[in-house]
Amino acid sequence: MLPLHRQVANNLITDMNISVILGHPYKDSFNAAIAAAAVETLKKHGHTVSFHDLYREQFNPVLPEKELVSDVPGDSLTALHQQEIRQADGIVIIHPNWWGQPPAIVKGWVDRVLREKVAYTFPKGDNGGGLPIGLLKAKAALVFNTSNTPGEREQSVFGDPLQRIWKDCIFAFCGVTAFERKMFRIIADSTPDDRRKWLEEVRETVAGYFPAEKKE
Amino acid sequence: MLPLHRQVANNLITDMNISVILGHPYKDSFNAAIAAAAVETLKKHGHTVSFHDLYREQFNPVLPEKELVSDVPGDSLTALHQQEIRQADGIVIIHPNWWGQPPAIVKGWVDRVLREKVAYTFPKGDNGGGLPIGLLKAKAALVFNTSNTPGEREQSVFGDPLQRIWKDCIFAFCGVTAFERKMFRIIADSTPDDRRKWLEEVRETVAGYFPAEKKE
Repeated sequence: MLPLHRQVANNLITDMNISVILGHPYKDSFNAAIAAAAVETLKKHGHTVSFHDLYREQFNPVLPEKELVSDVPGDSLTALHQQEIRQADGIVIIHPNWWGQPPAIVKGWVDRVLREKVAYTFPKGDNGGGLPIGLLKAKAALVFNTSNTPGEREQSVFGDPLQRIWKDCIFAFCGVTAFERKMFRIIADSTPDDRRKWLEEVRETVAGYFPAEKKE
Repeated sequence: MLPLHRQVANNLITDMNISVILGHPYKDSFNAAIAAAAVETLKKHGHTVSFHDLYREQFNPVLPEKELVSDVPGDSLTALHQQEIRQADGIVIIHPNWWGQPPAIVKGWVDRVLREKVAYTFPKGDNGGGLPIGLLKAKAALVFNTSNTPGEREQSVFGDPLQRIWKDCIFAFCGVTAFERKMFRIIADSTPDDRRKWLEEVRETVAGYFPAEKKE
């Protein structure tokens, strides 16, 4: 069987719309370097990139009462995010591991952007207690994370909730089942050489899922 | 062996400081009713309650760059939250299950309030890659959640990340190992009678962990 990225790549069109979402407080964080490597690789391969640095654009992660009632986005930035994610052929998310979860600004992007009728729906007549139907058309989703927790401790003590959160609770729920996540660690102990290798891994992963040309 | 709430209750002092944190957009949500039942029970038992409805107080969940650098809270509300959580003998958290995680406003409370030196620390000389030491003095933490996902589906499809997030990633990390979580479901299908029973369960659980008098 082909590796997942080849299965995805074989079914992709060229010139895709790819959404890249970054959430880290520091302008020059390693997370920002990962995002830059992903964006650069995607552009080099001829794709159209919608890049959002949620901190720099001051995205408001608090889902307001009126959005929960009406499903109408309460500001134009959220409306733009919803429009882009509907059109995305691929999605790339970058954030640090904070408490086994994304930072609040990224969690709020999920809460406000991946709304009913945008990212999923329910069968007619259902009151919200039934099985959802995913609406996202993206062919694959990639998540890049950074952590200061050793891998063995993450699995044994914390159970690595980020994996199920992104893979099952979010992307599979919205209909995106081709999923890969890479965790770079230990950031606090990393050398410039570690980081160069990690950025190369980002470029290779992104190019593997979203190559320049349809492969036969 | 005694049930967990009796083990905790047997070691508690009377007139405790209990922090109650609520995160839901609707003023009159069932989550708000859970919080009101918890606060009322705690006060009836003679405890001092610090109650925060994060939506109503407009808590800002976005950890700013300067807080990540300095560990100094960037606003007086966050400073108050940190002071209260240091002094809390017990903690009660109430929120809906959104994507297997808390709403962003609650995640941001964790990001900004449970900071290093407030909720945990590292051994001297460690650069953040080692084993943390929990600093919270709370004797127990309770989490009440609401959901529209059936229990079996939550376990089999999503893996119930909220359990590990609150129990292991957050409270055990900060030194609070006596933990209980209750999930009320299916909210969308619930009757007034279901809700009355659930609120009674909240009162009993809170009173079990934080009783009026030391039990011998």
